[in-house]
Amino acid sequence: MHDVIVIGGGPAGASAAIYLQRSKLDVLLIMKDYGTLEKTQHIDNYWAFEDTMDGKELVEQGIAQAKRLGVLVKQEEVLNIENFNDFSVKTNKGEHHAKAVLLATGQTKPNLRVKGFREYTGKGISFCAICDGFIYRNKKIAVIGNRAFMSEELETLQNFTDDITVFTNGLDLEVEVDQPVNTEKITEIKGNDVVEKIVTENGEYKVDAIFIAMGTPSANDFALRIGAFTKNNNILVDDNFMTNVDGLFAAGDCIGGLLQIVKAASDGAHAAIAMNKYVRSLKK
Amino acid sequence: MHDVIVIGGGPAGASAAIYLQRSKLDVLLIMKDYGTLEKTQHIDNYWAFEDTMDGKELVEQGIAQAKRLGVLVKQEEVLNIENFNDFSVKTNKGEHHAKAVLLATGQTKPNLRVKGFREYTGKGISFCAICDGFIYRNKKIAVIGNRAFMSEELETLQNFTDDITVFTNGLDLEVEVDQPVNTEKITEIKGNDVVEKIVTENGEYKVDAIFIAMGTPSANDFALRIGAFTKNNNILVDDNFMTNVDGLFAAGDCIGGLLQIVKAASDGAHAAIAMNKYVRSLKK
Repeated sequence: MHDVIVIGGGPAGASAAIYLQRSKLDVLLIMKDYGTLEKTQHIDNYWAFEDTMDGKELVEQGIAQAKRLGVLVKQEEVLNIENFNDFSVKTNKGEHHAKAVLLATGQTKPNLRVKGFREYTGKGISFCAICDGFIYRNKKIAVIGNRAFMSEELETLQNFTDDITVFTNGLDLEVEVDQPVNTEKITEIKGNDVVEKIVTENGEYKVDAIFIAMGTPSANDFALRIGAFTKNNNILVDDNFMTNVDGLFAAGDCIGGLLQIVKAASDGAHAAIAMNKYVRSLKK
Repeated sequence: MHDVIVIGGGPAGASAAIYLQRSKLDVLLIMKDYGTLEKTQHIDNYWAFEDTMDGKELVEQGIAQAKRLGVLVKQEEVLNIENFNDFSVKTNKGEHHAKAVLLATGQTKPNLRVKGFREYTGKGISFCAICDGFIYRNKKIAVIGNRAFMSEELETLQNFTDDITVFTNGLDLEVEVDQPVNTEKITEIKGNDVVEKIVTENGEYKVDAIFIAMGTPSANDFALRIGAFTKNNNILVDDNFMTNVDGLFAAGDCIGGLLQIVKAASDGAHAAIAMNKYVRSLKK
């Protein structure tokens, strides 16, 4: 078991991992990719880089720095986090355990942008199978997604019903599933008091519930599953960057505030110092 | 007149100047030297620098970055800040004006470390000629210091009394003064209810008051002169990094908190964003 697992390899995650490692904790950093910085090409305002930097290059240097200082870095996609006696972090490649977890996965991406999406959110549209699946026992369910995160949700939902259709919303299905799959683009969600239909470019499909599991789970998705409070898509943390869940910390864009590299890196440093205290208090 | 004067060229000051410049304000950054980072040789924990960095090198790169983006940088020593209609910043080379000022001069250095120093602070030992000089009209005063800051204080004190001795506390006198000078090392401050004597390695000198003006004025010295609140040597700022003095902001080590580069640079970015709003609100 590790002392700390950091999820996310950008400025918040890597900065935290560097501080944690230097306080002599056993740190595992799990990152899927380079996040939003991968596509940010002209960074001029992060202090002490004389020349314009490329976002991906900065992230790479941060990871190289973390590795040089001894941080264990794994390129895996985190699919779920559970919290019993310790934290269990399930990825596409295995399971890792730690006494504390830092969420540093950046800002939540925009969700399904179709008519009716906002209207039926919470009225049949759900973002968490483990939270809401039991409500739809033996009902007709749609899961929207095309990757490992969708499979993860699908597996949970199969405990409640057999009538599940996967909608990829026009994307290629990247995982194997044993349920019907619809790859048409979704154009609208319809209903009355609650969700009734998914409308695609070619037809309409009756559903009792829709579970959204597009792309990679965001910090918000983890927060939802583990019971951490959020507000306006930002994870709520205290002065020590800890969520309401003991041992679960968050830093960087996923907690809101200034969406700037230097703020995220600073968050990471602050969170790491608090996490070090937290982990050491457990050891007493 | 500039929109903003930033005092200090370290992570907080340069980061702020970069953000201010990019928000299209007219920014002057005044720095005396490389601050505490000049002597910090192994920096491993500032995110995205793969290799160990030298503090001076980081500061140089931050200044080069600021200059590349258009920030006007002057290497001068700030001696005083006044605030009437606008801010007037007096340096060893001239006077500059701005609508807002950012103090980013790092942490206050330790003061005179001799027996009796703490005991008589506020009981005859003062840190501000303009604040307390009038109390000692026609009295016997000592000014401790050896540089331009001491001259600045001396000039103010000469309005109140002619009986002033400069004590350099063992250092070379770097400025010309027309008052008696004592270059012995100070070993103790003595008194009863209030200060009565300066004890040096070679003798005792009767005084009614001692004004400390050693080295370069710190952020605290400026705060004192301009009426900004401090607590435990940290300048107090609100959520917008503004002090209780309208238009006077502070960031980095001089406001306390984590004394880390990344925190100072992040402070600078936050302060700059708030200062931009402040300056633009004045223009309306």
